[in-house]
Amino acid sequence: MTTSTLLLSRRDLEFQLYDWLDAASFTDRERFSAHSRETFDAVLDLCAQLAAERFAPHNKLNDTHEPQLVDGRVRMIPEVKAALDAVAAAGVLGGAMDERAGGLQLPHLVQTAASAWFQAANIGSWAYAFLTVANANLLLAHGSPDQVERFVRPMLQGRFHGTMCLSEPQAGSSLADISTRAEPRADGTYRLTGSKMWISAGEHELGENIVHLVLARIAGAPAGVRGLSLFVVPRSLVDDRGVVGERNDVALVGLNHKMGFRGTTNALLNFGEGVFTPGGEPGAVGHLVGEPHQGLAAMFHMMNEARIGVGAGAAALGYTGYLKSLDYARTRTQGRLPGAKDPATPQARLVDHADVRRMLLAQKSYVEGALGLVLYCGRLLDEQRTAPAAADRAQATSLLEILTPIAKSWPSQWCLAANDLAIQVHGGYGYTREYDVEQHYRDNRLNPIHEGTHGIQGLDLLGRKVVMDDGAALAELGRTIRATIARATDGEAAELAARLDESLTRLLAVTRTIHAADTDAATRFANSSLYLDAAGHVVLAWIWLEQFLATGGAEDPFRRGKRLAARYFFRYELPRTGPWFDLLARLDRTTVDADPACL
Amino acid sequence: MTTSTLLLSRRDLEFQLYDWLDAASFTDRERFSAHSRETFDAVLDLCAQLAAERFAPHNKLNDTHEPQLVDGRVRMIPEVKAALDAVAAAGVLGGAMDERAGGLQLPHLVQTAASAWFQAANIGSWAYAFLTVANANLLLAHGSPDQVERFVRPMLQGRFHGTMCLSEPQAGSSLADISTRAEPRADGTYRLTGSKMWISAGEHELGENIVHLVLARIAGAPAGVRGLSLFVVPRSLVDDRGVVGERNDVALVGLNHKMGFRGTTNALLNFGEGVFTPGGEPGAVGHLVGEPHQGLAAMFHMMNEARIGVGAGAAALGYTGYLKSLDYARTRTQGRLPGAKDPATPQARLVDHADVRRMLLAQKSYVEGALGLVLYCGRLLDEQRTAPAAADRAQATSLLEILTPIAKSWPSQWCLAANDLAIQVHGGYGYTREYDVEQHYRDNRLNPIHEGTHGIQGLDLLGRKVVMDDGAALAELGRTIRATIARATDGEAAELAARLDESLTRLLAVTRTIHAADTDAATRFANSSLYLDAAGHVVLAWIWLEQFLATGGAEDPFRRGKRLAARYFFRYELPRTGPWFDLLARLDRTTVDADPACL
Repeated sequence: MTTSTLLLSRRDLEFQLYDWLDAASFTDRERFSAHSRETFDAVLDLCAQLAAERFAPHNKLNDTHEPQLVDGRVRMIPEVKAALDAVAAAGVLGGAMDERAGGLQLPHLVQTAASAWFQAANIGSWAYAFLTVANANLLLAHGSPDQVERFVRPMLQGRFHGTMCLSEPQAGSSLADISTRAEPRADGTYRLTGSKMWISAGEHELGENIVHLVLARIAGAPAGVRGLSLFVVPRSLVDDRGVVGERNDVALVGLNHKMGFRGTTNALLNFGEGVFTPGGEPGAVGHLVGEPHQGLAAMFHMMNEARIGVGAGAAALGYTGYLKSLDYARTRTQGRLPGAKDPATPQARLVDHADVRRMLLAQKSYVEGALGLVLYCGRLLDEQRTAPAAADRAQATSLLEILTPIAKSWPSQWCLAANDLAIQVHGGYGYTREYDVEQHYRDNRLNPIHEGTHGIQGLDLLGRKVVMDDGAALAELGRTIRATIARATDGEAAELAARLDESLTRLLAVTRTIHAADTDAATRFANSSLYLDAAGHVVLAWIWLEQFLATGGAEDPFRRGKRLAARYFFRYELPRTGPWFDLLARLDRTTVDADPACL
Repeated sequence: MTTSTLLLSRRDLEFQLYDWLDAASFTDRERFSAHSRETFDAVLDLCAQLAAERFAPHNKLNDTHEPQLVDGRVRMIPEVKAALDAVAAAGVLGGAMDERAGGLQLPHLVQTAASAWFQAANIGSWAYAFLTVANANLLLAHGSPDQVERFVRPMLQGRFHGTMCLSEPQAGSSLADISTRAEPRADGTYRLTGSKMWISAGEHELGENIVHLVLARIAGAPAGVRGLSLFVVPRSLVDDRGVVGERNDVALVGLNHKMGFRGTTNALLNFGEGVFTPGGEPGAVGHLVGEPHQGLAAMFHMMNEARIGVGAGAAALGYTGYLKSLDYARTRTQGRLPGAKDPATPQARLVDHADVRRMLLAQKSYVEGALGLVLYCGRLLDEQRTAPAAADRAQATSLLEILTPIAKSWPSQWCLAANDLAIQVHGGYGYTREYDVEQHYRDNRLNPIHEGTHGIQGLDLLGRKVVMDDGAALAELGRTIRATIARATDGEAAELAARLDESLTRLLAVTRTIHAADTDAATRFANSSLYLDAAGHVVLAWIWLEQFLATGGAEDPFRRGKRLAARYFFRYELPRTGPWFDLLARLDRTTVDADPACL
């Protein structure tokens, strides 16, 4: 069995939550007043145990025996439902939700850490819970009391599961081109018609019902994203008493087969094709969520949460790969150190080779840094909601806006790189399916694409987030980073801070250059992905300086390791930004000018 | 069916072979006098056709229906044998070998290009042929006439297949620790005992016999690599008349299951465990190849060829992924360009987005550059063998020594990165198994590990190749690159040349710093992998400048595309070396000083 010590480091979670992000201080706030560090720890322990005992054991099986479409129904190994039911029964599904809705009213910070155990153990099975929670959160924020009663409660009980249905065959990244239609009916419901693609958890037999949240266009709505409305479309209709009844007109067309996340069904669904005729009529019955044509804003509530969740999942996959390759490197012996080549001497441990330590340090800096970033975002969600001062709430909102594309993309890219290094540390064993790390690598490869590709995140950061409110969010980020720099007054911390300061200054300068009034649109966005890469590395350097400072100079191996990883990041990683900034600063047009006929 | 136009670009092969590397000039040499550009082209056409018709169609099937161990025998889909038999029947297996041995006596340059078609089409099936050819080449160079007659001829006829057996469970990268023993017998044969691990094509039913080339230690031999001898150990004994007889004591213990190359069996073999008793005695019968204790040098003959072949395979996988993502980007529409967001207008093609062109250009620069490097190495093999002047032959030998670790590693790393981008261009489709690119990515992930990991190649380059003969090989490489720079006198070529010159100067300078007499061994090799990365990028920049010059300034789209890719490489890729050189120049000891207890 995979013990929890190979999933995440409990020691590091404690450091990040308490020593650095001061989670315990939240218990002074009214929303969290029922909690204490003890209840936080109890939830972490419970999740670690459930993850190790219920999720990790079938991670490989759910990959090799992925869900199958048999006679129009999805068959999957029974361990998935057993694991999800155990989570629901333990009451931790709605950890951060209101108590009145059936949640534990935990800080998002703690809930993000708790969920990471499941993501590290078995991201394919956990995805069902992840989508259900995100769906429930959206309905709690934007749904009617009746919708909450009818759909959210059963989801938190583990009886229903949720999805988000945005993409269509012709509209993946381009939400403006969504064409699913919604026709109003006299009873206040709508009838939907259209096809939805890439729907994770779109079909299965894990519960009594599936609650689809669907973006569609009400007849007569404007073109583009301003004409999108959001609907609850349950797979089966639910009456006023909450009883699941007649089948709605939502039909499974087929499943996609993926290189990773194989345990998570990914479906093409047809809405309103007449396969079922609820109430004797064609069309999928949908309930409008919020106001007409305001669907995208509501869906972004779910999508922003999902994006940070994708980053958290990527970090968790990277983390478990790191721990497994570290464990392997500590026990496997191979070769001898430079200058000690006598074949009569015993072989050295892998971890004794500097190049292996380089691969381990790189992983450590990626995964502990990425986890730090997503936990920091979790804390911002709490600040946004519960900070006593309005200015602090506004600051948190601003930072969340600008950090979300980075929290989605950076872990997806660099914790995939971590998994690549985890394979490399294992040598030939690393690419065999008898070991775990090749699956983590395949699972993690989905993260830079789903919930908005790397390219989309780059456009979001450069085209929206750094310019919104006259650049207020970027300015806020700059002030926040400079506040950290100001605290790093001594010794090595001061050296790192000086380098971070230089990098931040460059980031702000290239942003001004790119958004100068005389830059044309094509040039401006020519290197938006590199801008995202560069901003990501600057943010992570800041996260590492924060963690460096949080060690307080103590000399135990754990804290020395934190400073070592920070040092590695500043020496080996942050300098990568130099060439990226050079390209951005000169408004390089190589890709803009490239004639497609020459490719 | 996958047409050959989605495997490799015939247009590019022609450019690289004829316009750049002047393959046609080889026909003036005696060894190649039976050939002409027409015969070269005929072989390329034949291989392209066989690859498209016989190999590509079962590439996915061989991945989803990998070889199975059933009742001690390996079962695989019949398409594999049919494809390999077709190649043998067409007579192209021993393309570069002597006519007297049954080969076509083609230049290695042409043979490398011809083989790349098969590697692009189905690397899992082609691996059986690849190993057989490398095995046959070794025996042609080092085996006795009897060994050639008994083993090489049947291999070229497709009746036997070959392997190389180096690794053991305790000795993967560390060949000094090989412990398989060989006991001499009165009849001149040996009896071998030991376990061999990671044996590609180690067991199958594709022919009458399997010819294992095995590194082992004769009783009483010195410890370490200087005590290794090389043996032919056939799976079944072959008598003097070439008849396959009694089963030798080579037993399949199990198959490894890999993330890629799934069609290629990968076996753990036991030699001499008494499962079979050839001649009534225990022990696997082996025939010594060459002299005792000289096995490693002979095996390096095969391994160097295999390493360039791994680079060629990585390039081919990158290449087909590039062509498939380019094809997709030209047809798939999604989103609109910056400044043109009206949802009433049609969506743009993917290739019209600058960020997608960036991903395509990166792939193009990686895969056409990598192919160029391995073709250049193929040409060096020909020069080493057939150049009229001794000085040219010596130069080729020197360049091959220093370029081999780069030709193995650089394509393995960057054409894997190309496959990653090919997935990204496809969006969600890219990670589904319904498309091809995710398999290319999985297949390519083995290449940075097998036949010597990236770390091993870095140590080979920095610890052996750049210092051998007082740095003669590195000096030769420097002179060769500077000769190219000297030809780039005008316009953009001169600009690129100036940047290459700077990078080369830095490479030579950091090499001197690293090998300064007062540098201790641990510090010297602390960043050998980064040294390999940096040297690789400098070499590829040179390959790109060579290709840029070979366009001769012509303005057709193909040649403009070559210059565009070169420009991309110099602007986006070569600058990556800056931070690597900075680290190397300051003899950074972060990884050396890292305490394993802090990880």
